[in-house]
Amino acid sequence: MQPPLNATRTLTPDTCPAEAPLAGLNAANPIRIGLLGLGVVGTGVYKLLMQDGVQGALPVTIGPVAVRNQQKTRDIEQESSLTLADAEAIVRDPEVAIVVEVMGGLEPAFTLVKTALSQGKHVVTANKALIATHGPELFELARSKNVRLLFEGAVAGGIPVIMPLKLSLAANRIEAIAGILNGTTNYILTQMAENGLDYQIALQQAQAKGFAEADPTSDVEAEDAAFKLSILATMAFRQQVMPPQIHRHGITAITADDISNARSLGCVIKLIALASKNAQDALELRVQPMLVPASHPLASISNEYNAIWIRGHAVGDVMFSGKGAGEQPTASAVTADILAIARDLASGNEPIPGMAMAAMPAASIQPPDLSENRYYIRVTTLDEPSVIGHMGLACGEAGVSLQSVMQQGTQPAQNNLPATASIMLLTHQVSHQAVRNVIAKLETLPSIVSIGSVLPVLPF
Amino acid sequence: MQPPLNATRTLTPDTCPAEAPLAGLNAANPIRIGLLGLGVVGTGVYKLLMQDGVQGALPVTIGPVAVRNQQKTRDIEQESSLTLADAEAIVRDPEVAIVVEVMGGLEPAFTLVKTALSQGKHVVTANKALIATHGPELFELARSKNVRLLFEGAVAGGIPVIMPLKLSLAANRIEAIAGILNGTTNYILTQMAENGLDYQIALQQAQAKGFAEADPTSDVEAEDAAFKLSILATMAFRQQVMPPQIHRHGITAITADDISNARSLGCVIKLIALASKNAQDALELRVQPMLVPASHPLASISNEYNAIWIRGHAVGDVMFSGKGAGEQPTASAVTADILAIARDLASGNEPIPGMAMAAMPAASIQPPDLSENRYYIRVTTLDEPSVIGHMGLACGEAGVSLQSVMQQGTQPAQNNLPATASIMLLTHQVSHQAVRNVIAKLETLPSIVSIGSVLPVLPF
Repeated sequence: MQPPLNATRTLTPDTCPAEAPLAGLNAANPIRIGLLGLGVVGTGVYKLLMQDGVQGALPVTIGPVAVRNQQKTRDIEQESSLTLADAEAIVRDPEVAIVVEVMGGLEPAFTLVKTALSQGKHVVTANKALIATHGPELFELARSKNVRLLFEGAVAGGIPVIMPLKLSLAANRIEAIAGILNGTTNYILTQMAENGLDYQIALQQAQAKGFAEADPTSDVEAEDAAFKLSILATMAFRQQVMPPQIHRHGITAITADDISNARSLGCVIKLIALASKNAQDALELRVQPMLVPASHPLASISNEYNAIWIRGHAVGDVMFSGKGAGEQPTASAVTADILAIARDLASGNEPIPGMAMAAMPAASIQPPDLSENRYYIRVTTLDEPSVIGHMGLACGEAGVSLQSVMQQGTQPAQNNLPATASIMLLTHQVSHQAVRNVIAKLETLPSIVSIGSVLPVLPF
Repeated sequence: MQPPLNATRTLTPDTCPAEAPLAGLNAANPIRIGLLGLGVVGTGVYKLLMQDGVQGALPVTIGPVAVRNQQKTRDIEQESSLTLADAEAIVRDPEVAIVVEVMGGLEPAFTLVKTALSQGKHVVTANKALIATHGPELFELARSKNVRLLFEGAVAGGIPVIMPLKLSLAANRIEAIAGILNGTTNYILTQMAENGLDYQIALQQAQAKGFAEADPTSDVEAEDAAFKLSILATMAFRQQVMPPQIHRHGITAITADDISNARSLGCVIKLIALASKNAQDALELRVQPMLVPASHPLASISNEYNAIWIRGHAVGDVMFSGKGAGEQPTASAVTADILAIARDLASGNEPIPGMAMAAMPAASIQPPDLSENRYYIRVTTLDEPSVIGHMGLACGEAGVSLQSVMQQGTQPAQNNLPATASIMLLTHQVSHQAVRNVIAKLETLPSIVSIGSVLPVLPF
């Protein structure tokens, strides 16, 4: 028996003439978008659809729009023609087919998106915190209402990654994802590497240039990247990953010495968001600074650029890179989602609900201590001849095999402080637990002054 | 008035339980795929769907299968359960919903695909020559029959690029695409650069390793890359680009000297497939070796890897990279296309026809002589003190301004031949016409022995 091959003509924006019938939609009866937020991203979406005309023959229009401050002047043409409305009214407006949430933050965004979905509206959002935190509830609601909830803009700005994961890589069992998902920290680490800056100076420069916020905590402590990783991991592994399940460590303790040590090992230091499946099908999830070998494609991603490297069982290794934030890149992603929904509505097709993340089992998570990596360890010791021998013995007793030990410099005695040496250890593949044991042992050695950074080498 | 928000439940493979109704489809009445070709890619597709089960709950099955040699043993499980059939019968088989063409070559693939589309079957192909050469006719036919014709595997193997261009970057006016689209030539150029090999030696190594065919013409003369560029340019610029419209130049004349000269300029040499829009909205289309600055993301794409760099007016610069060929990567792309169609069929949805390339206007092409670039020119001259002065004057007379002139080495007199010098010129931005004028002028100078490579610098 033959599967159904429908014969009705359908239309895509690149081919349908403007006068063609579009499921009863036309310029006088367009697909109406309710826009929640007219900040950086909202303005970008408005410009793309209302000024640049990227929708082609698809009849879409934006309005009403909810803004926080009605008095503010905005960088858009014909601002006076904007129909402003209360956000709560927009998500209940029967004329609105698609609600676009670009306010950011958990509330009122969460309540508004829930209401919009409950009212049978499709929703497009770029809100990573919202999707990472409330994804299960929202996707279940979208499924029950048979509407789409799309979120390409929530991860890595304009870089296509959600849609490719869902569609283009659908024939793959994903084995690992490693991403540079936060532009602020990548900018800071790049400036530290290129100009030999210490962390605090690089942070101040990033703040001066607008790449870091006045309170940079969410970026530099890896919270932002963990939100994004939880979304990617949930989609890639089809298990519900929540942000608190991700082991994370920020970049604030990275020094210029760490970066030059890494370079002497042929590596750069990057804040890597990593999700992989272990042999028992449990997920290893972490965001932390790692040494990335210069030959790895992620090593060349600089400054505010983002990248997502994916290993699939069939496709092998692929990588997507580009600008991870900004008005226009994120608006590009949000608008692509809007057009995907509008195309379905205009073709008279039933939208396939955006249930990519609905009804997933809770993730099975590998405890962080079981993570196995090569580790870089920076130690400050007294400048004594036997110190490397003592450290080597301590590592051996903890079952940690060393690949190399290198003295990287000395500090002469001064101000009643003894002369010290900076020593870098590189281990073979060992568990995080074993490394913790080694650190505890090293701390008891009388010749050790302090233990500095302990960083894994990217295992892929 | 509100656009239609349908309420019927639809299903996606990641969520639908196996027992759910799938538009009358189930294990006993699956979506039947007719497979034309069981070579490298066909075997990969068969394994993904019949052994790896990547389709989840979507009821798809492969068979009948058309093979060239029924006696050959294949690397698949339960080969005896394969239903073999004649290709001509498969494309007319009423039980077959999706025809997958992975035979390659223009005929009989063209005739078979036309018949399949005429019979109302969806078609998935990885055949770049077919899509590049007969795209307009095939997409028009697909549109008239309301079926999909998908071809993700035709460009850059498993790297998602067709779907992202069509969907994820839909809100962008594409300004330029620059790709490394041929793994064979990239492998050869990488080996030349890393090991100082000359072209012929590197080619032989590539042939020995299976990265180049016995007759490498289509790869090294850039025909393969031109096919792929014509497909990408047609999709990106929505103008019908045919392969003969692409100015192309192969890599056979590149020498080890060119590569070391490029390195002294901070560049690598890559075979770049470039499509961009000029100020008059005409397309500049070319595949040729170019100098790529080391800081450009394309510079780090090595060996058999491919990459596509895209500049969009909203998203800025994004890049997709990965393995461009091979059984599993290409099968990953073909299978993703199959699943996209199967999902529509199973949801009872009307497939949106794959008319991405139908009814496009013919491309408006910029004549190659108007292309403006910085150019690298390698010249062998007599080893005389005034030669650089004469060359400089000749360039000035042709209106070509030089950025640098560097003597790269000398060859002492031998066998009655005079002593020669190898000199490298780097121009400022000039037209290809002006460079041709300069070459003609240089050839008349008595101190010039020969003109070697003339290569543009990647303009993005």
